[in-house]
Amino acid sequence: MFFASSLIACWQDAVTGFDPQSVDGQNSGIFLWIALAIGVIGLLIALLFARSVLKSDNGTTEMQAISNAIREGAEAFMGRQYTSIAIIAAVLAVVLYIGYRLSPFTAPMANKVVISFLIGAVCSALSGYTGMFVSIRSNIRTASAARTSLGRSLQIALRGGAVTGLVVVSLSLLGIGLLFLAFGGLTNPRAIPYQLVGFGFGASLVALFAQLGGGIYTKAADVGADLVGKVEAGIPEDDPRNPAVIADLVGDNVGDCAGRGADIFESTAAENVGAMILGAGLFPVFGIKGILFPLIVQAINIIASMIGVSIVHSKEDEDPMHALNNGYYVTSFLALLGFAAAVYFMLGARWWFLACGLVGIVMSFLFVRITEYYTETRYRPVQSIAEASLTGPATNIISGLAVGMETPAMPVIVIGASLLLAYYFGVRGLADVHIAAYAKGIYGTAIATMGMLSSSAYILAMDTFGPITDNAGGIIEMSEHTEEVRGRTDKLDAAGNTTKALTKGYAIGSAALAAFLLFSAYLETIREIVQHRLHDAGLLLPASWSFTNINLASVPVFVGALLGAMLTYLFSSLAIKAVGRTAEHVIQDVRAQFKENPGIMAGTSKPDYGRCVRIVTGAALKEMILPGALAVLMPLAVGLSFRHLSPSFHIGTGEAYVPSINGVAINLGGAESVAGLLMVGTISGILLAMLMNNGGGAWDNAKKYIETGAHGGKRSEAHKAAVVGDTVGDPFKDTAGPSLHVLIKLLATVTLVLAPLFL
Amino acid sequence: MFFASSLIACWQDAVTGFDPQSVDGQNSGIFLWIALAIGVIGLLIALLFARSVLKSDNGTTEMQAISNAIREGAEAFMGRQYTSIAIIAAVLAVVLYIGYRLSPFTAPMANKVVISFLIGAVCSALSGYTGMFVSIRSNIRTASAARTSLGRSLQIALRGGAVTGLVVVSLSLLGIGLLFLAFGGLTNPRAIPYQLVGFGFGASLVALFAQLGGGIYTKAADVGADLVGKVEAGIPEDDPRNPAVIADLVGDNVGDCAGRGADIFESTAAENVGAMILGAGLFPVFGIKGILFPLIVQAINIIASMIGVSIVHSKEDEDPMHALNNGYYVTSFLALLGFAAAVYFMLGARWWFLACGLVGIVMSFLFVRITEYYTETRYRPVQSIAEASLTGPATNIISGLAVGMETPAMPVIVIGASLLLAYYFGVRGLADVHIAAYAKGIYGTAIATMGMLSSSAYILAMDTFGPITDNAGGIIEMSEHTEEVRGRTDKLDAAGNTTKALTKGYAIGSAALAAFLLFSAYLETIREIVQHRLHDAGLLLPASWSFTNINLASVPVFVGALLGAMLTYLFSSLAIKAVGRTAEHVIQDVRAQFKENPGIMAGTSKPDYGRCVRIVTGAALKEMILPGALAVLMPLAVGLSFRHLSPSFHIGTGEAYVPSINGVAINLGGAESVAGLLMVGTISGILLAMLMNNGGGAWDNAKKYIETGAHGGKRSEAHKAAVVGDTVGDPFKDTAGPSLHVLIKLLATVTLVLAPLFL
Repeated sequence: MFFASSLIACWQDAVTGFDPQSVDGQNSGIFLWIALAIGVIGLLIALLFARSVLKSDNGTTEMQAISNAIREGAEAFMGRQYTSIAIIAAVLAVVLYIGYRLSPFTAPMANKVVISFLIGAVCSALSGYTGMFVSIRSNIRTASAARTSLGRSLQIALRGGAVTGLVVVSLSLLGIGLLFLAFGGLTNPRAIPYQLVGFGFGASLVALFAQLGGGIYTKAADVGADLVGKVEAGIPEDDPRNPAVIADLVGDNVGDCAGRGADIFESTAAENVGAMILGAGLFPVFGIKGILFPLIVQAINIIASMIGVSIVHSKEDEDPMHALNNGYYVTSFLALLGFAAAVYFMLGARWWFLACGLVGIVMSFLFVRITEYYTETRYRPVQSIAEASLTGPATNIISGLAVGMETPAMPVIVIGASLLLAYYFGVRGLADVHIAAYAKGIYGTAIATMGMLSSSAYILAMDTFGPITDNAGGIIEMSEHTEEVRGRTDKLDAAGNTTKALTKGYAIGSAALAAFLLFSAYLETIREIVQHRLHDAGLLLPASWSFTNINLASVPVFVGALLGAMLTYLFSSLAIKAVGRTAEHVIQDVRAQFKENPGIMAGTSKPDYGRCVRIVTGAALKEMILPGALAVLMPLAVGLSFRHLSPSFHIGTGEAYVPSINGVAINLGGAESVAGLLMVGTISGILLAMLMNNGGGAWDNAKKYIETGAHGGKRSEAHKAAVVGDTVGDPFKDTAGPSLHVLIKLLATVTLVLAPLFL
Repeated sequence: MFFASSLIACWQDAVTGFDPQSVDGQNSGIFLWIALAIGVIGLLIALLFARSVLKSDNGTTEMQAISNAIREGAEAFMGRQYTSIAIIAAVLAVVLYIGYRLSPFTAPMANKVVISFLIGAVCSALSGYTGMFVSIRSNIRTASAARTSLGRSLQIALRGGAVTGLVVVSLSLLGIGLLFLAFGGLTNPRAIPYQLVGFGFGASLVALFAQLGGGIYTKAADVGADLVGKVEAGIPEDDPRNPAVIADLVGDNVGDCAGRGADIFESTAAENVGAMILGAGLFPVFGIKGILFPLIVQAINIIASMIGVSIVHSKEDEDPMHALNNGYYVTSFLALLGFAAAVYFMLGARWWFLACGLVGIVMSFLFVRITEYYTETRYRPVQSIAEASLTGPATNIISGLAVGMETPAMPVIVIGASLLLAYYFGVRGLADVHIAAYAKGIYGTAIATMGMLSSSAYILAMDTFGPITDNAGGIIEMSEHTEEVRGRTDKLDAAGNTTKALTKGYAIGSAALAAFLLFSAYLETIREIVQHRLHDAGLLLPASWSFTNINLASVPVFVGALLGAMLTYLFSSLAIKAVGRTAEHVIQDVRAQFKENPGIMAGTSKPDYGRCVRIVTGAALKEMILPGALAVLMPLAVGLSFRHLSPSFHIGTGEAYVPSINGVAINLGGAESVAGLLMVGTISGILLAMLMNNGGGAWDNAKKYIETGAHGGKRSEAHKAAVVGDTVGDPFKDTAGPSLHVLIKLLATVTLVLAPLFL
């Protein structure tokens, strides 16, 4: 049907004598080639960064032994995880193919959707794998450099992170760009974006399972190791006597690095596809340039981030955050310059769209600052949790939850203001064009989203910096070094914790903004489908008709909305319970090892790290299936069942036109209730994710704050209470919260792909 | 403007020769008189129940001393609380009056809205006060009867509760019925329901502050008493040496009894007003009978519940829950019979509407059962929390939160199915009538809501039973009785805890169903307002136009939706933090008392209970202002600011008609974004309330389960962990959760009252 779409577009062009070149000028295709070239350059630079990291010193034999154990564990997990995901993806590809073949409307599209789905999945997996591959090699080199210089150590960790950032953005750009080219985008640009939805879905699917599996792994190992190590056996964190310690360090890599890599890949891919669909809707205005604009923004992102990463240098006595923030400001500024150039060359110097891009950049800045306020020790929220710890774990938890529930307030106001401003600027930017105001405004919000994502490669580098420094700290801790060296890694580790929290704020902000763009792409896709059904029946859809009415007062939409919100709660519950059950396995194994081999605690013999790694690997992979399946199946079930509901559920809109074939109105009930599920599910998911991310981050730092000596310091009762809060926060901020980001985007891409089945 | 509305309705009737009597038959007004008479009977029966409770034996002097201390504390709190609320209500009445006078459209309505607002507020306050008045007198009589007989003791507690239930429902019925009569409902029935919205708002406003203030009080006293008593001083619960023990017992009365009384009063009032507005919309079909139907259902509720309460008898060795459940089944069955009669006499024997009522009754049954599953010790959820307590407080909390997040799943499916079924039955029930399918379906959901609330007086009796038995247990505990007597009160207390949890499930279910009804009333009210503006300009609104399009794809609606969802989080956060801060005052006072007077712990001198009561009273009242103000001001701010947004934010609906005056389209942006806030705020509030209510209940019972000997029993490490969970759950289930029920309904009534200001 999408295929049919392209035929019609051609036909329409032929009939009306409409020539894309007349809008575009002779050589607009050049922008695609520029974007692709920069994508290749991005990969090459990533390779250079990787070489520069890999050729640094890799420490003592003792350090290498630990690092190798982490590497083997991580590689074994990723190998098994990707095998599981590959099986799931293959099954889904077959289901998707059959589903599309079943209806004459969709059959012609089946091949392209499945191909782009598989390519999206492979690129997403590659992104995640690269993140892990580099970070488990950067950790030891960061640790080794920390023995002599803070600045060098910071540089290695950030460049290791930058490899992930650049690879993710480049792969997304190349994957979409090449598919666009291969599907004939340069000759028939208007129809191709709809055919790329499979790419976004493939990316989301892999991202969901990568984030879920990795998230369950990392926190189960962490909680398990802490409970049985710190609490039961009374040994410190990262103590080599703890059989779960390697599993814990492996977790940082497979959860944070691989998971977040796939997450941001998905964001970029979904946003690109969505923005290209909206660009196709504005084809009469911008021609192919409007469709290629998102790819050029990603190219700008690659260059700006690369420069940003290169300039980061830290002095020995400086706070590492200072240097990292400077890099971020430089990147944002360069991205803004690039954005201005792109608006000038591609959007006909309609400067209101630069204002839209600026809205996105400012919004990402504000999100990072708000997250900082809620999770850093120097502000009231974390201090209030630390203070509440004085009266025990119960008040610590109550206070942390209260902080978590407070956190959505400011970001929601920022999102609301950004959407309204970007919409308004979009309408102004196209004031002279005769299309619906809605299409103009929505394009404005899409440009804002691109603005927000125009520094994503740098943000991702900062994010991956976190687990690398965390691991480096662990390696130093386990291999006995001086106080001075530990001081350096502690400093880097603290900066890493901050960047991890801040980038989560950024990730949820971009998910929120992208969500609105993806809704709009979904609505536009449904309109496109209706237009084709009518065309196949020899009818014409009035140009003024659009599928832009998701009426909450309609019972099916309201029920869809309720189900969408419920999905986010149930999904979080399943993810958290999965961590609990998996941690249980870790605890039992550690207890068993202590019992079987008393030499471990005495320090005379080594525990069997691998056994723990294997156990948590198997359990985490088993546990990721149920929540993952729920996320895919629920929109499908809602769409298919509401499609068959009696038309009496629909609200007659008076005189408004309803498309019909042979006198039978097209039943939009399924598509509408899915839209309700998608939109309200997204709203609920955003708020819940903020609660969990920021609550978890605040608990974590309240503990750290007490460890710096406040309220009695380490080993005080307040500290014990704060440890409880920190443990509760772990599955919040590292499993359920980040998985919700991915869920939100998966909901958007799964509804895009399944849209034809809902009508 | 509403006043104008009635004039127009008269005028239209005169012009078209439409005669309500022709639809109604000669004597339909008789239904109003029947309802009013039963309302009076309800009050008389409540008086009889109260007398029967008051004349029972009121125990030993020692018991009376304790009971008197509770009574004095509760009365002092309620006195000061109602003074504060009266000031707030008076200020709001003035603001409302001025707001309505400002515009020529609304000025004629100002008097009626303010009068009904004040009467609603007074009735709500009376309901809450009665609940507290009787329960603080029933507790000692229940305790006294427990010295000889379980059955008698149960009867006293339930009848004490029934006084509240009957008074609440009767006052709501009489208040609305008499206002309807006084405003001229019998001569001009069609226009009056719109004039009663003030009553619902007054009721909600008082309920919000009553529930917030009482909820903060009860949990601050409880948490404070526990933390400093059990944890620091190592004395058992309800120990007379604890200076906060009376404050704790006072809290049960002012929070649970008074708060819930005002809550259910508000539900009934809001639902009655909303259903009457929808009935007015169907005036051509049912005439005045459709408008009076909700009042008759409340009359049925009074009779059915009265009989249900009377037949409850429990044998000495029986589980009290068994007897209470039997009463509930009898009440439901009688309500169903009454419903059938009402459908026969008032809705022209359209039996599909009986099916709608049945949907509501079945839904309330399912909600109670689902809540039971999540909060009773014999099922998996509570047991999983108890088991998780073995590995410490952190896993107890994680597991409780996971259970809490799982709880919305089944209820949401039940709500969804109920809405769809009731809608469908409504459409079938009016198949032969030529009105929009939407109006038919919505009336079906309204009937289902009435079905659900048709046993509310009994449910409220069961609910108030909880704090009465809790107090009775406390009195027995403090005044040294035999094991056997304690065994009886423990049994009743356990049953009371169960009923409290179950009725919370019922309350949130009815809030969810009523919410949809209230949305519809809001939409209908906006249509009515638009009609008047046009009429005043000499124009006619096409009959086919309705304000039923709340388009989530429109940016202002989406932003309103985001803000609504955020409001529920921020409100909960403020409520929880208020508990924490108030508890801090309690802790400090108890510590001070122990220090000032060492005789307290030695048991040689009495603590100053009153000082603690005064401190927590002052603090709770101060803390309730901010969250309460937020709930009222946010919809107002959103409505007023979005009203002035550029019309370019609106989605052109193609050919659809947009009402306009002098060529200027009426800007519906403010009304739409408020609708988005209301609907999505409600969805988010429902889920969050379920999470908190059921999570809190599960934690509570996990602790109780361990206390029965599981996992090491009392004083084990698992028990300590479970106490942490219980403490965390307290502000969830007794402050934030119940306050959210009220918030949801307040949002609905405040938007109804402020609707004219949004256009």
